[in-house]
Amino acid sequence: RRFVLGARDLVDSVAAHSPARFALIVFSLAICIFTALLSLPVAATSGRATPLYDSLFTAVSAVCVTGLTVVSTATHWTFFGQVVILVAVFVGGLGIITLASVLSLAVSKRLGVRGKLMAQQSMNVETSKLGEVGTLLRTVITTSVAIELLLALMLTPRFMILGEPFGQALWHGIFYSISAFNNAGFTPHSDGLVPYETDLWILIPLMLGVAIGSLGFPVVMVLIMARNNVRKWTLHTKLTLVVSAILLVGGTVAWAALEWDNARTIAELSIGDKVIHALFASVMTRSGGFNLVEQGDMESTTMLLTDALMFAGGGSASTAGGIKVTTIAVMFLAIFAEARGDTEVRAFGRRIPEGVMRVAISVLVLGATLVSLATGALLAISGATLDRVLFESISAFATVGLSTGLSGELPPIGKYVLSALMFAGRVGTITLASALALRQRDQLYHYPEERPIIG
Amino acid sequence: RRFVLGARDLVDSVAAHSPARFALIVFSLAICIFTALLSLPVAATSGRATPLYDSLFTAVSAVCVTGLTVVSTATHWTFFGQVVILVAVFVGGLGIITLASVLSLAVSKRLGVRGKLMAQQSMNVETSKLGEVGTLLRTVITTSVAIELLLALMLTPRFMILGEPFGQALWHGIFYSISAFNNAGFTPHSDGLVPYETDLWILIPLMLGVAIGSLGFPVVMVLIMARNNVRKWTLHTKLTLVVSAILLVGGTVAWAALEWDNARTIAELSIGDKVIHALFASVMTRSGGFNLVEQGDMESTTMLLTDALMFAGGGSASTAGGIKVTTIAVMFLAIFAEARGDTEVRAFGRRIPEGVMRVAISVLVLGATLVSLATGALLAISGATLDRVLFESISAFATVGLSTGLSGELPPIGKYVLSALMFAGRVGTITLASALALRQRDQLYHYPEERPIIG
Ligand SMILES: [K+]
Ligand SMILES: [K+]
Repeated sequence: RRFVLGARDLVDSVAAHSPARFALIVFSLAICIFTALLSLPVAATSGRATPLYDSLFTAVSAVCVTGLTVVSTATHWTFFGQVVILVAVFVGGLGIITLASVLSLAVSKRLGVRGKLMAQQSMNVETSKLGEVGTLLRTVITTSVAIELLLALMLTPRFMILGEPFGQALWHGIFYSISAFNNAGFTPHSDGLVPYETDLWILIPLMLGVAIGSLGFPVVMVLIMARNNVRKWTLHTKLTLVVSAILLVGGTVAWAALEWDNARTIAELSIGDKVIHALFASVMTRSGGFNLVEQGDMESTTMLLTDALMFAGGGSASTAGGIKVTTIAVMFLAIFAEARGDTEVRAFGRRIPEGVMRVAISVLVLGATLVSLATGALLAISGATLDRVLFESISAFATVGLSTGLSGELPPIGKYVLSALMFAGRVGTITLASALALRQRDQLYHYPEERPIIG
Repeated sequence: RRFVLGARDLVDSVAAHSPARFALIVFSLAICIFTALLSLPVAATSGRATPLYDSLFTAVSAVCVTGLTVVSTATHWTFFGQVVILVAVFVGGLGIITLASVLSLAVSKRLGVRGKLMAQQSMNVETSKLGEVGTLLRTVITTSVAIELLLALMLTPRFMILGEPFGQALWHGIFYSISAFNNAGFTPHSDGLVPYETDLWILIPLMLGVAIGSLGFPVVMVLIMARNNVRKWTLHTKLTLVVSAILLVGGTVAWAALEWDNARTIAELSIGDKVIHALFASVMTRSGGFNLVEQGDMESTTMLLTDALMFAGGGSASTAGGIKVTTIAVMFLAIFAEARGDTEVRAFGRRIPEGVMRVAISVLVLGATLVSLATGALLAISGATLDRVLFESISAFATVGLSTGLSGELPPIGKYVLSALMFAGRVGTITLASALALRQRDQLYHYPEERPIIG
């Protein structure tokens, strides 16, 4: 008992003093455990131990809710293996949401009373309720499980109608609901969602789950609490919803326009099915990772569009990856402010502090640098073409999971590079942003101002 | 005479009220004139009129000092045509430097007394001397011509020693010196610089010319006036020199490492020649546009490295393109400031105002957006692979002129897209940055602060 208390004190102390380091440790530990479990002979249908580069890759992909695979989820792994993957997705998803929320709270505590009030406001929960990590975790778990159960309830009957026995239909319902809400993109069917490509009863719950999951916990809480009372919405909620809507509609229109006559993908389909495919692609590209068409069969222009949408990603403190929609919002607001000649960056009647802009630049530049370096390394390792390598790198960085199949073709060293990229993309962006925001302090003395020429 | 005065008043008025619009008009006019001249039958060796898409492309490429070509400069154009191209490069280069300098001055005037003093300081010239555009233009012309003459004096004897008659050697000396100092990258020889790939007497003057030209007029003036009295150097000068040096050395090392064993490029050469090739590539990639090896023969990793260096570009108010080294410096300084927890962005004992950061984001996002859109369009138009299309797009945007030959293979519509991209990359970044900086004004009322979550 003394040992447990001691360990708990240690955890509390690390979490309080260096939340970013705490995040790294927790995620690394989780990945080690799931790698060990997936390496067991009982996890593979072959009955033999899966090599480290494949089990590590799968564990990282699951814990980071990426969904990239190097072996078929349906045929390589046993039921035990699939359960391990699903648990890893569930734990990883909860961990990411909780961690990002805790870090946002930690930022708010350092920001003094005013910042604290704002952050509580942005979580839309009372101080007393969110004071402890435990309470926050409970709220996150309750909300997540409730939404996942709802999705599973919608999906299971459909799989039964399609002829699956109850047990299997329930398993598939649960698997897809957890995979969707956590933006993980793993599928338990060997040919993925392709057999259901016109089945709205399956596609709509998946799109709903992914879309809600990608908004992020702070936004979901505001929507649950404040409902359609827009005046109570936080700035963060408004920015997230507006940019998500723009990317969703813009992505759908652009995807449809580029693929409309592509005989390898949707040219043969009815107009209604084409629109569904475009909408589905637009929802899934920003982190869900499910796909209805072979990604390598898309036009090269569509792959470029997909690259851009994947890099953008979803909402902060969500299971979606990428540089996040608020980062994009803040950058464009800064540009509009410049164009109008304003000295303040404003949105919805609020002023966005200057420090936020610098965090946004940092996240953008870090992301672009990581993707560029990984692309360079994988070009050298795989000898594949730039379009495929860039696609796989951005998919890994933004934990999307869409793929032209390159991950599976890579030699072990390439799989380790992608594993590292998934980890850095997932844990890196959330911890970096909070670590940076946490360190902000006022300077005691000021330097004289001087203006370099830009552009 | 009254007409001339009226026209002069009009020009003065447009220049004073909307320098950005003035820049667009002047550049468009220059391009129209040179397109007309290049369309003349006397300009082409065939004796027939060159089609509009080729003459326009060449005129834009010359005026914007890009150096991309759709027809061979040495064989398609007559001596008259080559003189037109050289004049266009000369006029374009002077125009860009003058314009960028005038715009920086205009920015400083709007910034009030303090900003004005700083900008004059950054030009390192007295107000009275730079008060008029005419005086500035004279200083720019004098400095440019002096450096170009020096380069021509170094090159001409070498071409004579290599067996060219005096007239031809002089013409080649002048052509290369203007092309190098203006970072234009046009060559009057049909096989470019390949015959001189180990001739240091030619390579060194070219590298010097390109490197000095790419620093930018404000930096060159400071170096001429303050010499090695570092305390008198402006912040702009220090940032430009430091980032240029880092990119130069880093680019050389990375290029050498990636190409060392590439049998299509430098594997067969001696170690000394390999180093020269790497240094030359590193200098030329950030805007010079001369090349010793076939760009399409490089490793795909080297092409990615080249993409990054081209996008970065040279100094502000220079004939180099790209997003400019000070933009990169400001962004990384902002990231370092965040990492240290500083609320101010500092460098060399000076504070960089927040507005500068927003201009830097604008330039970066504009550049990335332009390149992405053009890449998408050219992918659809050409059907070429992403690596070649991206390379050509960045080369055009950053007015570098390195090419895998895609420009010449494009149908007319593709040539128009690249022409527009060269124009936007050249005139866009300098006018955007100043137009934004010019509009900065203080707000009369303030909004309450609210902090969205980033990353
Ligand atoms: K995913
Ligand atoms: K050039």
